Amino acid sequence: MTNSSRWDATSVIIAKRDGEALPPDAIEWFIRNYTEGAVAEEQAAALCMAVFLNGLDPTELLTWTNAMIDSGVRTDLSAVIKPTVDKHSTGGVGDKVSLILVPLMIACGAAVPQLAGRGLGHTGGTIDKLAAHPGFDPFLSPEALIDQLNSVGGVIGAAGDRIAPADAKLYQLRDITGTVASIPLIASSVMSKKIAGGTQNLVLDVKVGAGAFMTDVDRATELAETMVGIGNDAGVNTRALLTGMDSPLGRTVGNTLEVDESIEVMQGGGPADLIEVTLALAREMCDTAGLVADPATLLASGETLQIYNRIIVAQGGDPTAPMPRCQHTADVTASSDGWIAGMNALTVGVASMRLGAGRARREDTIDLGAGIECLHKPGDQVEKGQPIFRMHASDSAKFELANEMLLESLTIQDTSPTLDPLIIKRIT
Amino acid sequence: MTNSSRWDATSVIIAKRDGEALPPDAIEWFIRNYTEGAVAEEQAAALCMAVFLNGLDPTELLTWTNAMIDSGVRTDLSAVIKPTVDKHSTGGVGDKVSLILVPLMIACGAAVPQLAGRGLGHTGGTIDKLAAHPGFDPFLSPEALIDQLNSVGGVIGAAGDRIAPADAKLYQLRDITGTVASIPLIASSVMSKKIAGGTQNLVLDVKVGAGAFMTDVDRATELAETMVGIGNDAGVNTRALLTGMDSPLGRTVGNTLEVDESIEVMQGGGPADLIEVTLALAREMCDTAGLVADPATLLASGETLQIYNRIIVAQGGDPTAPMPRCQHTADVTASSDGWIAGMNALTVGVASMRLGAGRARREDTIDLGAGIECLHKPGDQVEKGQPIFRMHASDSAKFELANEMLLESLTIQDTSPTLDPLIIKRIT
Repeated sequence: MTNSSRWDATSVIIAKRDGEALPPDAIEWFIRNYTEGAVAEEQAAALCMAVFLNGLDPTELLTWTNAMIDSGVRTDLSAVIKPTVDKHSTGGVGDKVSLILVPLMIACGAAVPQLAGRGLGHTGGTIDKLAAHPGFDPFLSPEALIDQLNSVGGVIGAAGDRIAPADAKLYQLRDITGTVASIPLIASSVMSKKIAGGTQNLVLDVKVGAGAFMTDVDRATELAETMVGIGNDAGVNTRALLTGMDSPLGRTVGNTLEVDESIEVMQGGGPADLIEVTLALAREMCDTAGLVADPATLLASGETLQIYNRIIVAQGGDPTAPMPRCQHTADVTASSDGWIAGMNALTVGVASMRLGAGRARREDTIDLGAGIECLHKPGDQVEKGQPIFRMHASDSAKFELANEMLLESLTIQDTSPTLDPLIIKRIT
Repeated sequence: MTNSSRWDATSVIIAKRDGEALPPDAIEWFIRNYTEGAVAEEQAAALCMAVFLNGLDPTELLTWTNAMIDSGVRTDLSAVIKPTVDKHSTGGVGDKVSLILVPLMIACGAAVPQLAGRGLGHTGGTIDKLAAHPGFDPFLSPEALIDQLNSVGGVIGAAGDRIAPADAKLYQLRDITGTVASIPLIASSVMSKKIAGGTQNLVLDVKVGAGAFMTDVDRATELAETMVGIGNDAGVNTRALLTGMDSPLGRTVGNTLEVDESIEVMQGGGPADLIEVTLALAREMCDTAGLVADPATLLASGETLQIYNRIIVAQGGDPTAPMPRCQHTADVTASSDGWIAGMNALTVGVASMRLGAGRARREDTIDLGAGIECLHKPGDQVEKGQPIFRMHASDSAKFELANEMLLESLTIQDTSPTLDPLIIKRIT
């Protein structure tokens, strides 16, 4: 097959380098041969940079996404009885929404085949967070996936190597070659996995702000529209919400700490911003999937937490077992009186990573107990010397640098700030 | 050293991707760590593509070139008595000028430290051509180089791994990642090797046309001016001639065949175009090095051939030994009556490579006897059925494809063509 093509790697790279639209067979040849190892990593790196700088037109993007899907298998969920709906977030700091949203949507009557990722850099990953429950296993066979969708109603699993293996390879490459923040490359990466995952309905949470890949609304809108277009073209009902990620979502950053907070929300408590984003996404998912339900009532009823526990148990975890905690804590105190006007999510995310909660490189291990509690959030009035953050770490030597970064993340001003709305835009 | 830098590979790539000018320490860090293997091939590929598309400003280019020089050693030629002068060609088809020019310049009173390359793709390399002399060894120690410069007056050697090893690594990478034809990358590659080679004076032969990397005069002028600027900034008196490469230079393409033709020129014969380019470069080299000599007379006198034979002997070769020849020949005949208006050098170069005379990949071996004689050249009137090319190959099965390509390389028209001048421009 490979040798019968009129394409070779250098010709494909040169065509994109020179701003040409790549014919479908060129893209299919490249992605297939890259997946199989016949195209070298350095050749794929050169093509990604050419795509980053010269773009992909809508036709190229669809072909590229389909080629990534076809590098693996498409999950067949036709044996699932309830309507399927999934959510994907482009990644943020303190974003534990999936932990709450999956059981909540099951309570609303949906089947939720959530395949989540691991965290990298300053952003966390759902799979890492659930590792705080001893025994939890994110890997399911295709049969176990369908069984659990019909019995429990949902899964929170890892994509594994069946789903878009070309994307897994390309994502690692992009991470070390400065080619992550490209709209066509992000859109094809997200959508190839979600389409191959087999869901009928999909809501995208596109994060905008200091702690997101997209820092301005225009670029985020373009990314959202691109992904919504790909999804609908592939027959998946797809919508997107743009939500704010200037400061961390909720009051915790770090794996065990975020599970604590998610459980608090499912017990009827928790911070308002986290509840607002979760419910906005839940309503959008109900609407997309044609479900008539009241997510706010179901979240407060305690039923969502019962379903959450069932998911953990179904995937081998023990929700009653103690979760990993760090031995040491230390507080970061305000350096002046005033109102908190800003809390840079990127800086908080990197500080949390430095405390051990995240990985700078894919091969790093995570300290599940480490992280940061935000004792105050933007809008709060504080006094000099008052604790603003509580840091958790296994090694107290890590506090000094994190303390410095967290102070840097804060903007304290003399007047009460006007906060931007959290739900920015809806794209259908 | 490496860890004390504020740079990492991804930050350097992202800065160039976003169109920023790279600070000197970023370039130095990247090239040093790439040479040492701490920066991965895929990261260098992404940076090369970003440089290809976003360029390097003059300051970046100087730093880049110096970093490549500093990846190896600068040859110290202060012990050489005569003025040193070197020539570099950007590569063409049938370009055997160095074989004649090195001994000719020695006859003119210069010391010529020519470090040449191997051929790749459709262009030939001087080192491959000299391999036609049994026993010839292009590798010289630094001491042997200086001894031979003072005794024989010149060398034709291979750069080896002392001279700009970063360039050797980067060139192989660029070859497979579609990042060859970039003016800053070509200019830094050529000039790092030539400056590290230690010559005081340098004349560049920048080829323009169908068989050259630069197919139009504007781009070739930009490349020539860029290289002349780098050379003079580094204290090397540098000039350039733009010369035509629409059709092959001289009447032979292939290693032994080109040595035959070079010897013919040094015996007072040979084709006019080859003599014209050789003498133009020789006069420019004499002028640059401040030598008063008459290259035309010295070329015809037979002295140049004596010096050529001394170089071959000094480097272990036997100029009287029979050279490798192919068993099979076949002629390509004109398909119509008329005048030859064009003979596409790229097509002829690829045909010669397919006959065995060149390498498609760096690891391929060469058939030294293989190649093509041009029995006619542009401007000649020919009749249908008259032989235009004579092909040489060890395997007669290779003639069919080469025959087809050679016919395709020809433009035959009804009227006598006006030929473009061979010496296009002089850049000082």
